[in-house]
Amino acid sequence: MKADLLSNKSVKQLEIVKVNENSSFRFTDDISIEEPLEIRVSYLATDQKESKNISVTMRTPGNDAELAAGFLFTEGIISNRSQIKNIYYPESECSRNSENAVIVELIDNFVPELKKADRNFYTTSSCGVCGKGSIESIRTVSPFLHQKKENTVVSLETIYQLSEKLCSFQNNFSATGGIHASGIFDLEGNLLALREDVGRHNALDKLIGHALSADLLPLTDKILVLSGRASFELIQKAAMAGITIVAAIGAPSSLAVDLAKEFDITLLGFLRDNRFNIYHSGNHFKIENLL
Amino acid sequence: MKADLLSNKSVKQLEIVKVNENSSFRFTDDISIEEPLEIRVSYLATDQKESKNISVTMRTPGNDAELAAGFLFTEGIISNRSQIKNIYYPESECSRNSENAVIVELIDNFVPELKKADRNFYTTSSCGVCGKGSIESIRTVSPFLHQKKENTVVSLETIYQLSEKLCSFQNNFSATGGIHASGIFDLEGNLLALREDVGRHNALDKLIGHALSADLLPLTDKILVLSGRASFELIQKAAMAGITIVAAIGAPSSLAVDLAKEFDITLLGFLRDNRFNIYHSGNHFKIENLL
Repeated sequence: MKADLLSNKSVKQLEIVKVNENSSFRFTDDISIEEPLEIRVSYLATDQKESKNISVTMRTPGNDAELAAGFLFTEGIISNRSQIKNIYYPESECSRNSENAVIVELIDNFVPELKKADRNFYTTSSCGVCGKGSIESIRTVSPFLHQKKENTVVSLETIYQLSEKLCSFQNNFSATGGIHASGIFDLEGNLLALREDVGRHNALDKLIGHALSADLLPLTDKILVLSGRASFELIQKAAMAGITIVAAIGAPSSLAVDLAKEFDITLLGFLRDNRFNIYHSGNHFKIENLL
Repeated sequence: MKADLLSNKSVKQLEIVKVNENSSFRFTDDISIEEPLEIRVSYLATDQKESKNISVTMRTPGNDAELAAGFLFTEGIISNRSQIKNIYYPESECSRNSENAVIVELIDNFVPELKKADRNFYTTSSCGVCGKGSIESIRTVSPFLHQKKENTVVSLETIYQLSEKLCSFQNNFSATGGIHASGIFDLEGNLLALREDVGRHNALDKLIGHALSADLLPLTDKILVLSGRASFELIQKAAMAGITIVAAIGAPSSLAVDLAKEFDITLLGFLRDNRFNIYHSGNHFKIENLL
């Protein structure tokens, strides 16, 4: 993995006008960069090299290799890091930006099931598109769902600190106010890794791609903290990575709660100002000091 | 268009546990519904009826016909409402939810260019995936970009009220705190229409679909207010609908600003508490009472 695939070019400066009450002034502000990234896989199929475009996502540049690896993993196209031979930017004819495509080269004896990517977890053959069907299709591809769960205890103080810690790390990292974050914490509330992106699904794919590359999966006995809302897609990605505790600063959706219940993932929402909601408390999860 | 395609089933009640400081209590809370919707088009091609799946989106049920029509319009697959013959839910074998697909039947003499949907505005043949290329490809399909623009004056008071008005209308509408809104206002700050969804792009597609159905396009001399951040995708949809003023409660991305400048769309961000930032002030746009 080349070093420049891990670099951070997430912010640019822009001349804007700030308006406050009835006065205005010119100001140089930071703004989050959004650019498309095409994720391609290349693999050897019956002695022929094949290259397929899997997805185009609008993302914040930086950690593109992690994003690509995490996306392929959370979509069920690869199941472990040893299936990846190399990740690189292709040569491009575009003068403006040569880093808007990334190629994940797979090992020679591995042909991915790309139909899984087509279905994108939202459809099953039996029932067409349906939330229930989507949940069932995740069950068939997630490598970590059948693991035995250990009992987990987290203190109330630790939970309350998670949102502040995520925000303060984000403030150190980016000053744009326009970016989502996903952070992974241990059960004592120590931040292990954080990734940011204009797309919340990309921030989580980068984080999971990092964990995949560093051989940290499954992320059991860890807490995933989301800077915004918890959608179905985010809980699906968490489930794929074996995450059993998710805390969101924002609200969860109905299908996110259904999925959390189905896979026994503890799901907390609206975590801020010493308050939160428990949408599902996992069978092996306990909060210390809660009356 | 059937009445039930316009109904609102966006919220469900759920038993949760609320935690505040170190006490907890059971509570019945509203939660935003998220379910997949498959958007299909059906049309007559060389005397054969064709049906194609265009997209699967995770959306909040309600206003599905508007969502489908708005999506087809903002993706450049249809260019006016007269190309739509009918919109309906197909018969489904799924017992859980029969309204997770919607079919847009097009008029007999109209065969849509579905390649446009494949490209999804993110790629051009000349340069692959690139933000600049994406902007150029929008230019070729947007029906309203070449219109002559009238001079537009909006008062500072009107702008400051937009965020409060959007929030108060949202509060009356939904109590979940977990949903995005897009609202369209006239230049005096009167709300003309508002749509909500767990996906911000869906909220805007519903709003534009409504405007398309009610023959209100192009939405010149109107202000689009977004409850969250302004991404490239949202400004692209606004451009397709001929919207020339966008005000976002959250931050814009770099590519959203690029697009606004390219198409001379006034773009305001961080609009709250009598403050905002001007990322692009349109050539024909003026704020009254601003020092």
